Amino acid sequence: MNQPAHQFASDNYSGICSEALDYLQAANVGDAPAYGNDEWTQRVADKFRELFETDCEVFFVFNGTAANSLSLSALCQSYHSVICHETAHIETDECGGPEFASNGSKLLLAKGELGKLDPTDVERLIIRRCDIHYPKPKVVSVTQATELGTLYTVDELHALRELADRHGLKIHMDGARFANAVVALSQTPADLTWRAGVDVLCLGGTKNGMAVGEAIVFFDKALATDFAYRCKQAGQLASKMRFIAAPWLGLLETGAWLRNARQANAMAAYLAERLKRFPGVRLMFPPQANSVFLELPESTVGALRARGWLFYTFIGVGGVRLMCSWNTTPQAVDQFVDDLAHSLA
Amino acid sequence: MNQPAHQFASDNYSGICSEALDYLQAANVGDAPAYGNDEWTQRVADKFRELFETDCEVFFVFNGTAANSLSLSALCQSYHSVICHETAHIETDECGGPEFASNGSKLLLAKGELGKLDPTDVERLIIRRCDIHYPKPKVVSVTQATELGTLYTVDELHALRELADRHGLKIHMDGARFANAVVALSQTPADLTWRAGVDVLCLGGTKNGMAVGEAIVFFDKALATDFAYRCKQAGQLASKMRFIAAPWLGLLETGAWLRNARQANAMAAYLAERLKRFPGVRLMFPPQANSVFLELPESTVGALRARGWLFYTFIGVGGVRLMCSWNTTPQAVDQFVDDLAHSLA
Amino acid sequence: MNQPAHQFASDNYSGICSEALDYLQAANVGDAPAYGNDEWTQRVADKFRELFETDCEVFFVFNGTAANSLSLSALCQSYHSVICHETAHIETDECGGPEFASNGSKLLLAKGELGKLDPTDVERLIIRRCDIHYPKPKVVSVTQATELGTLYTVDELHALRELADRHGLKIHMDGARFANAVVALSQTPADLTWRAGVDVLCLGGTKNGMAVGEAIVFFDKALATDFAYRCKQAGQLASKMRFIAAPWLGLLETGAWLRNARQANAMAAYLAERLKRFPGVRLMFPPQANSVFLELPESTVGALRARGWLFYTFIGVGGVRLMCSWNTTPQAVDQFVDDLAHSLA
Amino acid sequence: MNQPAHQFASDNYSGICSEALDYLQAANVGDAPAYGNDEWTQRVADKFRELFETDCEVFFVFNGTAANSLSLSALCQSYHSVICHETAHIETDECGGPEFASNGSKLLLAKGELGKLDPTDVERLIIRRCDIHYPKPKVVSVTQATELGTLYTVDELHALRELADRHGLKIHMDGARFANAVVALSQTPADLTWRAGVDVLCLGGTKNGMAVGEAIVFFDKALATDFAYRCKQAGQLASKMRFIAAPWLGLLETGAWLRNARQANAMAAYLAERLKRFPGVRLMFPPQANSVFLELPESTVGALRARGWLFYTFIGVGGVRLMCSWNTTPQAVDQFVDDLAHSLA
Repeated sequence: MNQPAHQFASDNYSGICSEALDYLQAANVGDAPAYGNDEWTQRVADKFRELFETDCEVFFVFNGTAANSLSLSALCQSYHSVICHETAHIETDECGGPEFASNGSKLLLAKGELGKLDPTDVERLIIRRCDIHYPKPKVVSVTQATELGTLYTVDELHALRELADRHGLKIHMDGARFANAVVALSQTPADLTWRAGVDVLCLGGTKNGMAVGEAIVFFDKALATDFAYRCKQAGQLASKMRFIAAPWLGLLETGAWLRNARQANAMAAYLAERLKRFPGVRLMFPPQANSVFLELPESTVGALRARGWLFYTFIGVGGVRLMCSWNTTPQAVDQFVDDLAHSLA
Repeated sequence: MNQPAHQFASDNYSGICSEALDYLQAANVGDAPAYGNDEWTQRVADKFRELFETDCEVFFVFNGTAANSLSLSALCQSYHSVICHETAHIETDECGGPEFASNGSKLLLAKGELGKLDPTDVERLIIRRCDIHYPKPKVVSVTQATELGTLYTVDELHALRELADRHGLKIHMDGARFANAVVALSQTPADLTWRAGVDVLCLGGTKNGMAVGEAIVFFDKALATDFAYRCKQAGQLASKMRFIAAPWLGLLETGAWLRNARQANAMAAYLAERLKRFPGVRLMFPPQANSVFLELPESTVGALRARGWLFYTFIGVGGVRLMCSWNTTPQAVDQFVDDLAHSLA
Repeated sequence: MNQPAHQFASDNYSGICSEALDYLQAANVGDAPAYGNDEWTQRVADKFRELFETDCEVFFVFNGTAANSLSLSALCQSYHSVICHETAHIETDECGGPEFASNGSKLLLAKGELGKLDPTDVERLIIRRCDIHYPKPKVVSVTQATELGTLYTVDELHALRELADRHGLKIHMDGARFANAVVALSQTPADLTWRAGVDVLCLGGTKNGMAVGEAIVFFDKALATDFAYRCKQAGQLASKMRFIAAPWLGLLETGAWLRNARQANAMAAYLAERLKRFPGVRLMFPPQANSVFLELPESTVGALRARGWLFYTFIGVGGVRLMCSWNTTPQAVDQFVDDLAHSLA
Repeated sequence: MNQPAHQFASDNYSGICSEALDYLQAANVGDAPAYGNDEWTQRVADKFRELFETDCEVFFVFNGTAANSLSLSALCQSYHSVICHETAHIETDECGGPEFASNGSKLLLAKGELGKLDPTDVERLIIRRCDIHYPKPKVVSVTQATELGTLYTVDELHALRELADRHGLKIHMDGARFANAVVALSQTPADLTWRAGVDVLCLGGTKNGMAVGEAIVFFDKALATDFAYRCKQAGQLASKMRFIAAPWLGLLETGAWLRNARQANAMAAYLAERLKRFPGVRLMFPPQANSVFLELPESTVGALRARGWLFYTFIGVGGVRLMCSWNTTPQAVDQFVDDLAHSLA
């Protein structure tokens, strides 16, 4: 009944990878205590601590909007503000979720090339006001990989940390596609997070091959005080938690989380490679993770859609976003490129 | 790795029933549009309209706290109030979820025997204040089946509707165990909801055999205006919606939703039947749905726990709650009763 | 155009006392910086520190609901709860103000004789739940003088502090009629607040003879972090702050704040004294501050109202509340008592 | 103790005008019912209906942030958005007040010359998204007079109304300096509000010569449903309401509200006239109401401050804002201009 894999619309169009599903089924034997008091949840939390090489606090919520909104609201009060890139998901695609969860915290929009925060512009936002008539900046939010498929280097993260320290701000990372960043940068999860100064990470499971469920990882454990209450109150505490915990364990234990990300990245690279050869097709950003942005004539966009291709023309950026996923195949890439060739012709 | 079925703790200790899992797996073939724009979601929404014999609006959220909190916040503003039974889940077990989602709506606690709202006490709460210094009552919330395992008859629902109409209130139904009520009362879903005056129903999937996912059914469609935005903002819009929609379809199409409820109810009846024969064991409420409440000496409670039995001693009520589920077996009942006999001896 | 002084309805029916008005007029000479950056605000803040014999943080807001709601929201997050007496103003007369300001914190209602918290019942509320499905108690709120015109002794305050310490709670004092308590108990403001363990005091100016304006005094200065932002965001930062600050200074510098309270208390005592002599009239509570509660037959209530007397029949308590104010006169008391005699006859 | 009138900082540095003070004192004779149930409040509400030539609903709150925040929250839910000019007070100077009161409604910032909304840019914001991942526009907020001292003509207001009608939006007017607009445009209050399509007006009293207190006028009475509860819950219901109502009546009955505005406007015009004669001084916007914006060298700004002059260098705009008030004198203008001449020399 589902759509054919005729799409580069989003990595959330893909289903559940086999490793996640296997663990979900394994967790479905017998009964288990609810609300995370089961062994799967305990195991996966330990696994996260091992993965990040530190004694962090781990929570699970249902989706990325919730992960970002609740973790940000743990970092700031209603009269504080969060600095993010103008293309950040928390600004453009969460329908005011952070403002709702925090009861009013404002997002301050910074600029920066390639979808990445420019520290100079972040600092401008921090220092331009110091009166009580404007929300006080309290958090810098980075997205890794960014909404434009680009990546912060470790050095860039350190620079933001240094800036945040100077002004007493916390650092939040939206890691809906964190796995894609890990494999693309060949860095350890620890080096890309707490060792680079990240206080809390929202780690995406859904786009990595799960049905549902994101992890929130607090590296600064003090920030996690009473956070379980916050999740519960916000309707984000799963009663049958094992069905989020076990698939996560499946991704981590089998290495699928990195394999899935690697496949998605590889397909984006392959797609970009093929696209570059077209005269007149311009890639908008360097495809560093699992998406490719390109400029196409309106008529070509229409022609591709007429052939059944699904993709987004990206809000606030213009151009076409082609998103690859853990289950994207070279055949799909080839077919898209062929259809593009026909459409351009 | 999970616990053995040595429990009467909760119906959310049970796993996923096979019908739900089968449909989840069927939905995992290929890609599908996100956010509910897939065919499974369309199909199950239509199925709900067929089931309820009316053109209702259906939304899916992740859990019961979210379903109750968001639907209530659609019915009242922050300065309004919701009248519920003092043992209602929205009062006792959602950590202030409704107050959070509504930005402050107060719950006014009514009394009533057997966990059911007494219309006289509800009216007392409605009329005792009419000044602006106290939140204005706007909603009556009923739980069907109740937290005490009892049921509202159709006549009782009509009486509350008549009362609500007289004072201009809406009626919300927390139906986390609605299926158990349907089979126990031998009534159609329509007769137990909109025909009895219910404006919005929160229909439980998790306790009925799913991994995650509750339905919110608006019979008064005007109340559903822009409700999709509310879900999105609150972090309750699943990107891979098909994995909530398809299991729901599985429950409904195969009849499992009623079979599961019937099994749970039957086990509770069997358990109650066996317990009644014990001298000195007193059932606290008539076991009309899938739970049995009984008074036990402290020492017996301890002895049963020592034998590995899991159950709740119920907050605000006292006594022991034994909750049956879709996968509770007569063997488990027998073993519990045997262990109880030993413990009492 | 105003009503004659034919009332025992409320101390907020009284106007502005001359000392407050004199200072308001003195502050109206020339221009002054806005938002509290004027000299009057600086002077009165220092005066408060002198009065309380400690280096406290002082803020001004417009009314009592705001003072209570904002100070409580500084003490707890949305998933926390506040324990107060079931007759507390924050519960019965602020239309959900605390829940709104805190985005959902629940009020837990404790019992206790004479409108005062019974520490045993407070502790019951603290310890009955320790799971994340119910808001975690974080604050004990006391009202001094209480809504029933009674007083906490210093020993009673210390007992609550000891209890709060044992469980890690903060203590908030609603002091809308704090001045009445100070004169009635013959204690220093310091002894009745921070030396008795109060973390934050909402100090009433309106009922003490001002037009508008309450003070919030943080004795635990850490709790006041960024509180000015909270006031601003909530619409509680006066631009022409001097017109709140100066009348406050007038009350404090001239001693009117105590004189006014003393007059109100004396009139209540005189009224109670005269009422006691009536056969069949029963005082409901010992009149320790500036109000008298008594039971009267319905017909007598009606007869007094027919003669133009204004007073409240008190919600949740029953009986008639007679509230004295800084401008209540013995003549008014005498006339009321005479009219009562006629009505009873 | 106050500052000398050596300031063009803000019209909220000025005190209370004599007409407002006279009425405040008149209202201070005897007692009066609280919470607006007094005759002054009744009289002034009727006066507003007469002034606006329509049966509107009138509420009083303490300040402009509250007026804007609460009225906007009556027009939209948390998942809706408000379109305003990027220099609007609700965006730049209320510390997230609207977002707090509405529990998260986003402000969408439109551009436009001279601080006025450009309908084309407003429409761009309305139509650029129609998905549930972004808050749905529900309100257009205009400021009259604007933050830059400019004015919407009646035709410009009608154009925005037409646009709002086409998309189903409401129109909110921030009228903190509405009186200045009325006298400058020589239009009736009705023609500048409901006849031009304004649904709700926040009408400023503070900057017009009062100590405290703004009026919220709902021309669309359906939007005012239960609004009194909202004010109460938000801590914006004055108990001694007469001390806000009576000064308002004083302003309106004596005509002071227009006289005060006329004086402020005249002083701004005089100031602008004198400034224009300076070579090298550039007025940034046409001074249509009571403020003048000009570009000055840094050194000149410093020199003027050294001579004791208070004024703002305006956030987000650059340049110096000189704000005139009801009590600004020609002598103050002359002295400022003389000092400027010295500073430039």
